[in-house]
Amino acid sequence: MDFLKEQFSYSNGGITAPIGFTASGVSAGIKKKGGLDIAMVFSEITASAAGIFTLNKVRGHSLDLCENNLNDGKARCIFINSGNANACLGPSGYNDAISIAAKCSAELGILPNDVLTGSTGIIGHPLPMVKILPAITNACSSLSSYGGSKSALAILTTDTYPKEVAVSFFLNSKKVTIGGMAKGSGMIHPNMATMIGVLTTDANISYQLLKIFLKKSSDKSFNRISVDGDTSVCDKILILANGLSGTDEIKPNTPEADLFLAALTAVSVKLAKLIAADGEGATKLIEIHVKNALTPEDAHKAAKAIANSPLVKTAFYGEDANWGRILTAAGYSGADFNPDITSISIGPLNLFKNGLAISFDETEAKEVLKKKNITVIVDFSNGTFDTTVWTCDLSHDYIDINANYRT
Amino acid sequence: MDFLKEQFSYSNGGITAPIGFTASGVSAGIKKKGGLDIAMVFSEITASAAGIFTLNKVRGHSLDLCENNLNDGKARCIFINSGNANACLGPSGYNDAISIAAKCSAELGILPNDVLTGSTGIIGHPLPMVKILPAITNACSSLSSYGGSKSALAILTTDTYPKEVAVSFFLNSKKVTIGGMAKGSGMIHPNMATMIGVLTTDANISYQLLKIFLKKSSDKSFNRISVDGDTSVCDKILILANGLSGTDEIKPNTPEADLFLAALTAVSVKLAKLIAADGEGATKLIEIHVKNALTPEDAHKAAKAIANSPLVKTAFYGEDANWGRILTAAGYSGADFNPDITSISIGPLNLFKNGLAISFDETEAKEVLKKKNITVIVDFSNGTFDTTVWTCDLSHDYIDINANYRT
Repeated sequence: MDFLKEQFSYSNGGITAPIGFTASGVSAGIKKKGGLDIAMVFSEITASAAGIFTLNKVRGHSLDLCENNLNDGKARCIFINSGNANACLGPSGYNDAISIAAKCSAELGILPNDVLTGSTGIIGHPLPMVKILPAITNACSSLSSYGGSKSALAILTTDTYPKEVAVSFFLNSKKVTIGGMAKGSGMIHPNMATMIGVLTTDANISYQLLKIFLKKSSDKSFNRISVDGDTSVCDKILILANGLSGTDEIKPNTPEADLFLAALTAVSVKLAKLIAADGEGATKLIEIHVKNALTPEDAHKAAKAIANSPLVKTAFYGEDANWGRILTAAGYSGADFNPDITSISIGPLNLFKNGLAISFDETEAKEVLKKKNITVIVDFSNGTFDTTVWTCDLSHDYIDINANYRT
Repeated sequence: MDFLKEQFSYSNGGITAPIGFTASGVSAGIKKKGGLDIAMVFSEITASAAGIFTLNKVRGHSLDLCENNLNDGKARCIFINSGNANACLGPSGYNDAISIAAKCSAELGILPNDVLTGSTGIIGHPLPMVKILPAITNACSSLSSYGGSKSALAILTTDTYPKEVAVSFFLNSKKVTIGGMAKGSGMIHPNMATMIGVLTTDANISYQLLKIFLKKSSDKSFNRISVDGDTSVCDKILILANGLSGTDEIKPNTPEADLFLAALTAVSVKLAKLIAADGEGATKLIEIHVKNALTPEDAHKAAKAIANSPLVKTAFYGEDANWGRILTAAGYSGADFNPDITSISIGPLNLFKNGLAISFDETEAKEVLKKKNITVIVDFSNGTFDTTVWTCDLSHDYIDINANYRT
């Protein structure tokens, strides 16, 4: 992915970096600890819109409405509240989501089904609508082209920092920008359904193609991060493309399409890595490459098992070069490989080669493991397929954060 | 399983409770922290023998030899060392296992392939054979019918207490005993390959039937526990049946066979629960019942996902009645169920009914969650299949134990 750094210039800002987008973040008093908890994103004109949604059987009511409102591939407004997931509440939860969309629609003078709703937080508690409805008025009147950062703050739950990215590139001499924001940070797991991400762009693209590209870019980014293997009931990625860059419409199988997809992937990978690095209690970002696997599935199974293993993640927290746990996780992953021709390295340390332990310098290992960014390479040497996933270590703070989240 | 309490009388002791078994536990100096690290179990006469082995692609060398030596369904001696897994060492690791079996064979005057070898501990370090070989002499000369407890201590790694069980019952007026010992306590996960368990019995049974019954009883016990979802490269269950109770041979599809299987299952369940309760850093044993599922697979998938969820396990550590995480884990498990007719309770607390949160008394919840044994019931109401799994909570101590295990 290093080529991305050169191909695209990361600009300041996030979702309001593209032309024609405004945003806001306000406090409705939903979160017990206070702070911003309602984010709004608005496009000057109707935008092509697409989304990817949780695979969890249990689904939040706001998410259900959001997916319905995306059926026509068009939207102008995204509403997200943090602090309450609006889930497991029966018909009243869905009605609350409808009331939110109606309120946004009335305030902004847009169609109700052009509002995409999202809620993240605790499950099973009714949304405090008496607080939310007046806050929507406030959020709408606060919309601004400088509002991206506040919006990125308002969607956070246990995250420790906001996650914003924007990149620009040129399509036939016209500048196109993609912006994004995301929240993690527990319940992050491959196969989406893992977080909330909002992407905006002034590119001119049909919603059909946008949907395909959103899936492709997410499969290389958001679907490759893991914090604790849990997936939540409310998580999704949304994208709005309003076309205000003024370029011609991006058509499939053109160099312009390739460039747009590459840029979208770059934004998504950067957000995904920010999420993994901010995993609950994380002290390190761990990049796991599985190389030369027999099939893409074998590479993915092994990488996922390593990324999800509490024993591997705790060893990284302990700054312990425990390649045995990495090999063990690959071993039970279901991936087809031969341990006798497998090699493992962590950063510059070769620890295991062709089935045999390699003696290494413990002092050098400690130095490598101290770093905040660690790369693990597992080389199966039995095929040609590679994959990369990102995870974080498992620390005392994870326990603290999650032992008392609800109460 | 409550019927087991009445049907069988648990007796003192473990693997040396059945007639004709002796055991010992000695210190060879393999473990850095010192203590007993070699366990030996011996049958006066050749016994029917069976085993179940790790499904991990990476397999310890001692385990490989053990499985080979079981091919004829006969054995007399079990050797297990803790502190070193004898894994990932190439041909020298297998040769070490052969040397161990040869030494036991010479000391005990038995065939080398009547020795079953096992090693548990760190991966990738050669066994200290200069320490182990003389210790085998010591272990053989220490064999005693009172040696079960020392043997149960010698197989432990990060366990905090030894795990021993024995039950007796009558087959046609003759007393038959089954004894067992096991070690956990991390890397415990359904599908075996999860721990070391040794079972002994003076029942008279063919190795073919013994193997079938070992699989059946393990599927209801050892394969239903989870500590962290990791499976190790060295784990197995072994059973020796020497027939010295003097009963007729147990034949398939007889009341005697049913009784023997029930007793074997009772011993295995008790050991499995002891392992789950002693999961690394565990403060609570959590029993998860999934009821009225569409298929046994759906019940199992949901129960396993709940048992493995770090978010669920951390909530129990925090004594937080977070049913939302239980439902969420079921939701991403792949089990087929409808959240709108699902109910969840923890002990006497009804928390979620037919898709809706139920308000409950937080003080009462705290009382329930304080207990050391907690039962969770998830009722899908869409079928007739039930399952039970056991797990533990995820605590600060898990992090401490695993952050610095190797070094």
